[in-house]
Amino acid sequence: MTQALAVVLAAGKGTRMKSDLPKVLHRLAGAPMLAHVLRTAPRRGFRVRPSSSVPAWRPWARPGWLSSPGPEVFVQTDQLGTADAVKAAAPAFEAGDGPVLVLYGDTPLLRPETLKAVLGELEAGADLVVIGFDAAEPTGYGRLLFDDKSRLAGIREEKDATPAERALTLCNSGIMAFRSSAALSGLLSRIGNDNAKGEYYLTDAVALAYGDGLQTRVVLSNAEEVLGVNSRSELAVAEGLMQQRLRAAVMEGGTTLVAPDTVFLSYDTVIGRDVVIEPNVVIAPGVTIEDGVTIRGFCHFEQARIGARATVGPFARLRPGAELAPGAHVGNFVEIKNAKVAEGAKVNHLTYIGDASIGPNANIGAGTITCNYDGFSKHRTEIGADAFIGSNSSLVAPVKIGDGAYVGSGSVISKDVPDDALALTRAKQEERAGWAAKVRERRTRDTSK
Amino acid sequence: MTQALAVVLAAGKGTRMKSDLPKVLHRLAGAPMLAHVLRTAPRRGFRVRPSSSVPAWRPWARPGWLSSPGPEVFVQTDQLGTADAVKAAAPAFEAGDGPVLVLYGDTPLLRPETLKAVLGELEAGADLVVIGFDAAEPTGYGRLLFDDKSRLAGIREEKDATPAERALTLCNSGIMAFRSSAALSGLLSRIGNDNAKGEYYLTDAVALAYGDGLQTRVVLSNAEEVLGVNSRSELAVAEGLMQQRLRAAVMEGGTTLVAPDTVFLSYDTVIGRDVVIEPNVVIAPGVTIEDGVTIRGFCHFEQARIGARATVGPFARLRPGAELAPGAHVGNFVEIKNAKVAEGAKVNHLTYIGDASIGPNANIGAGTITCNYDGFSKHRTEIGADAFIGSNSSLVAPVKIGDGAYVGSGSVISKDVPDDALALTRAKQEERAGWAAKVRERRTRDTSK
Amino acid sequence: MTQALAVVLAAGKGTRMKSDLPKVLHRLAGAPMLAHVLRTAPRRGFRVRPSSSVPAWRPWARPGWLSSPGPEVFVQTDQLGTADAVKAAAPAFEAGDGPVLVLYGDTPLLRPETLKAVLGELEAGADLVVIGFDAAEPTGYGRLLFDDKSRLAGIREEKDATPAERALTLCNSGIMAFRSSAALSGLLSRIGNDNAKGEYYLTDAVALAYGDGLQTRVVLSNAEEVLGVNSRSELAVAEGLMQQRLRAAVMEGGTTLVAPDTVFLSYDTVIGRDVVIEPNVVIAPGVTIEDGVTIRGFCHFEQARIGARATVGPFARLRPGAELAPGAHVGNFVEIKNAKVAEGAKVNHLTYIGDASIGPNANIGAGTITCNYDGFSKHRTEIGADAFIGSNSSLVAPVKIGDGAYVGSGSVISKDVPDDALALTRAKQEERAGWAAKVRERRTRDTSK
Repeated sequence: MTQALAVVLAAGKGTRMKSDLPKVLHRLAGAPMLAHVLRTAPRRGFRVRPSSSVPAWRPWARPGWLSSPGPEVFVQTDQLGTADAVKAAAPAFEAGDGPVLVLYGDTPLLRPETLKAVLGELEAGADLVVIGFDAAEPTGYGRLLFDDKSRLAGIREEKDATPAERALTLCNSGIMAFRSSAALSGLLSRIGNDNAKGEYYLTDAVALAYGDGLQTRVVLSNAEEVLGVNSRSELAVAEGLMQQRLRAAVMEGGTTLVAPDTVFLSYDTVIGRDVVIEPNVVIAPGVTIEDGVTIRGFCHFEQARIGARATVGPFARLRPGAELAPGAHVGNFVEIKNAKVAEGAKVNHLTYIGDASIGPNANIGAGTITCNYDGFSKHRTEIGADAFIGSNSSLVAPVKIGDGAYVGSGSVISKDVPDDALALTRAKQEERAGWAAKVRERRTRDTSK
Repeated sequence: MTQALAVVLAAGKGTRMKSDLPKVLHRLAGAPMLAHVLRTAPRRGFRVRPSSSVPAWRPWARPGWLSSPGPEVFVQTDQLGTADAVKAAAPAFEAGDGPVLVLYGDTPLLRPETLKAVLGELEAGADLVVIGFDAAEPTGYGRLLFDDKSRLAGIREEKDATPAERALTLCNSGIMAFRSSAALSGLLSRIGNDNAKGEYYLTDAVALAYGDGLQTRVVLSNAEEVLGVNSRSELAVAEGLMQQRLRAAVMEGGTTLVAPDTVFLSYDTVIGRDVVIEPNVVIAPGVTIEDGVTIRGFCHFEQARIGARATVGPFARLRPGAELAPGAHVGNFVEIKNAKVAEGAKVNHLTYIGDASIGPNANIGAGTITCNYDGFSKHRTEIGADAFIGSNSSLVAPVKIGDGAYVGSGSVISKDVPDDALALTRAKQEERAGWAAKVRERRTRDTSK
Repeated sequence: MTQALAVVLAAGKGTRMKSDLPKVLHRLAGAPMLAHVLRTAPRRGFRVRPSSSVPAWRPWARPGWLSSPGPEVFVQTDQLGTADAVKAAAPAFEAGDGPVLVLYGDTPLLRPETLKAVLGELEAGADLVVIGFDAAEPTGYGRLLFDDKSRLAGIREEKDATPAERALTLCNSGIMAFRSSAALSGLLSRIGNDNAKGEYYLTDAVALAYGDGLQTRVVLSNAEEVLGVNSRSELAVAEGLMQQRLRAAVMEGGTTLVAPDTVFLSYDTVIGRDVVIEPNVVIAPGVTIEDGVTIRGFCHFEQARIGARATVGPFARLRPGAELAPGAHVGNFVEIKNAKVAEGAKVNHLTYIGDASIGPNANIGAGTITCNYDGFSKHRTEIGADAFIGSNSSLVAPVKIGDGAYVGSGSVISKDVPDDALALTRAKQEERAGWAAKVRERRTRDTSK
């Protein structure tokens, strides 16, 4: 069968989102809704609205989550209904003669398995396939109508339905597939706009096809899969459903989530076997966690890699470019950015490591700061194997601490330290006996005057 | 119609709370339960228990959540039932002749819309209105009894109910309204205490009024609204329901809550449009977040203002008096208290800013501490526009860092720094070659002896 | 009645856990599943698998959660079914003649009350007791069969059941009790392996006992109690149920959990009255919290004690050996390990206190670090009563700060400080007027070249 092509409708204004961002660019599990749909679709194409909203689309023009080459974009000049929207993409599907899927940028939970079932029906002879679902609360949805031979005969919109039809619970998701672009083009050309809103509805294609004696079929999905997102509340519901899928998959793979509802994963999170994740962990896109890692509570990761058997947290933040080697330790109130922490190295408390490398078995004391930014540029800090950085030290980059070197507590190190040397900057400890007692006495006297 | 007056019963001991704090002062969404009821009521009045519990009430005598003038307080000398409790407030309602509402300090979820419906019934001619609800599990509640013309005829307590009456699910919430204080006074005077407990029950007013041929009506609420809080578990349930309302409202207003169940709002939280809030954020009272702000995970705010398009967190704490200007950046493990952060200023890592102002586009390095307390008093730190504070610096207040000034890493700055100057305190970096190797060797030898 | 003995089957491989750790050692509420079962059982005994999995068991050989003397371990050489597994423990139960319970290491939610009911049935004359439950979805479970006098006659495995039997919902939990070890031994000797898998099933004991005219009875539990854990998802479900129990108990005792679902307790957590815990708190084993304590959001505790009326957090971590006296204050981004904080002492911001003692009313400034590790050994820091430690100080242990002493901000203190003295290490503040302006200008010029 010829490669199928997907037309993804994505021009909805999303008024109820109350947002300057186009609706389909709101995110789920770290990626725009539209990206989820594009990842599911066998091939790509979508339309955008013109005019004022277009500039807002610029940021995602060729982002990482779109494989190259990206989708073709077709602009629907006026908003004249779903059939009109599909027509706008005619230059794409009329070029070939394979099957055409019509998907929606705001229906991001559709599973590839369901699309595969749709394509299977086309291969088995169907001319038009609709994804339907059994609605617990069907009000507002179009109902699927069948003839006495159980063939899909049409879709009845809520407002046009008889009481008997309203009692039906099998509803239209809007998602449809056509055996060939020729068939689609033919049907589109016959859809009229003789209705209350004066719009061209793609759903009308079903009755037309049935009337022509074509094979019309339904593939059932569950209601969650075809949830359309039109408000921030629905976005939150979709996010919750997607997180449930992601969590179930990592648990199935051998990861313990002590409290699954408190762990937030991204669409591309990779987690190994025998990993334990305590409650309250947020994993943004681009994170890989290898086997045997322990993640304690209250961690936040983004574009980072955690090597096997490492322990991280609680209260740790790994920012883009953080790479922990197997067996590394990162403790509480620690931020690591664009830095490699080698095997057995420890960064346990209240530390900022940025633009740096830390050698094997090095020990970074509490309160250590890599001063990577001088107000103009960023510079690198290199810390050797087995080095010991005393607490509360500042390492003024660019700077290199040698293997086995030792930095005294509270030092500000701005020159390289040779291997095995001690380096420190420290003023003599001065004392004034009785000073504190005298000051307290004077302050108390002043206050009581 | 004359202004209505509310009598709020608030003397319940709350034994099951196992607390030294009066029950109605336990908090929901940052305010005492009683405050929620007072905010809902059209006018105010409540009673407190005398004796030992009164001192505990002192802290809320005139707190911010009570508009001035506060409610009048009436003490119920003995605990003789709900009718007796309402009588204690007679000096308040007998002064006028408007409608009187009887509310409860431990029923904090009642919505103003429902009270408005009650007042509407009074305006439409009712003499007595009861708020009822359809209980999924009615056991323990009084049942609403109706005559054959569907008029409310009385309230049957569980223990006096026939099996047929027990099968009823329409229950009494306890909340009632009377057309006039005269009517209320008349009914109260006729309620007796000829029952098992020897108490005067306000619910008896319904049968008396019905017997007099007065108009008695029911306004239905959902069961959640009239949830009474008698234990810590019920308090948690009420908190959950109130949080759901608050979250739904901010999402409706155009805010993304990635995981609504993990974001905790206060009764007075104000959040703008196109704000994104990641999981795990706690917002205590007094917080305003303007349009376009991004709040990353694990933040804690209280009495703070976040300007438009600012980004905050993860792991940030804003304490009372924190004010971030539009476009400010506050990063991880940062605490800000009583301080203004101007436009474009950055406070990104492991920093404490207290009693301070930070100028536009200033950059505060990691590990910076404003030393605002000298053991006796608090002092202020002022940091100018475009200033650069090197990492791990201590700014000993009172101190002023000029516009465009530069503080070297690890400095302890106790004198003012002029505009555009460099200031630093730094001992020379000293080195002892091979020291670390020698010490390691000696230690290893000592250990192996 | 003779003391009962429990045989705990614990050899299941747990393939679906996809783990190197034996299934029954996966944790719930801070303790291995097996430990929960052992805590419930009246006396102890269990079997382990031999061979490759044994080394993994070593870590819990005699851990704190097992009272001394620990359970006897019996190895089941081959995996020939549950009856065979019980036989492996015969040396234990044949030594006495009391009742024998057969429990499961992967069924950790069984309540002591239910076991007590089982023992009560044995005392009342039963020879064999099965714990049954009414399953919402019985597929896969063995069904309990009764004769026309409502006596338990046998257990029918799913695959052998008739359609009528499959419609039954009363199911076998697997947990059984026998009146005497002699009775158990007799039944075990008669159980055969004439079935599809060629295994010896303990469930066959029921029909045998019934056939002998023995008294067979059922004790009903709810389905949750007998939930068996076979996958990470089921482990998460069990954790959730156990947390619900633990949370309900502390709320019942007079603790406010603002958001119960976000507070994670351990099996041994002790919490007093009038404690308030904000959202997002993780309490690992070994923690005691006394009356009147306030725990703010985002805290992580382990093996720590928090004295009455102390306030802790948000963003605080108490590690093993942290002891806060009544009225102590621990604030944000603070880590305390193996240290005592005396009454009224304050450790409010960005601090690491390890291997230390802090005297009454001492004030530890923001950014203070106890440098307890010198790369070779740990040393102690002692801070006296009323001492004041300036911000960003490093206390290089071993070191002692006297009562009432005052340490200047940013100091590195490596020698003891006498009572009431001021100590500081500070280089002179140097300035270069206009330096920052010149550098900015040069950098800008370089960049624009």
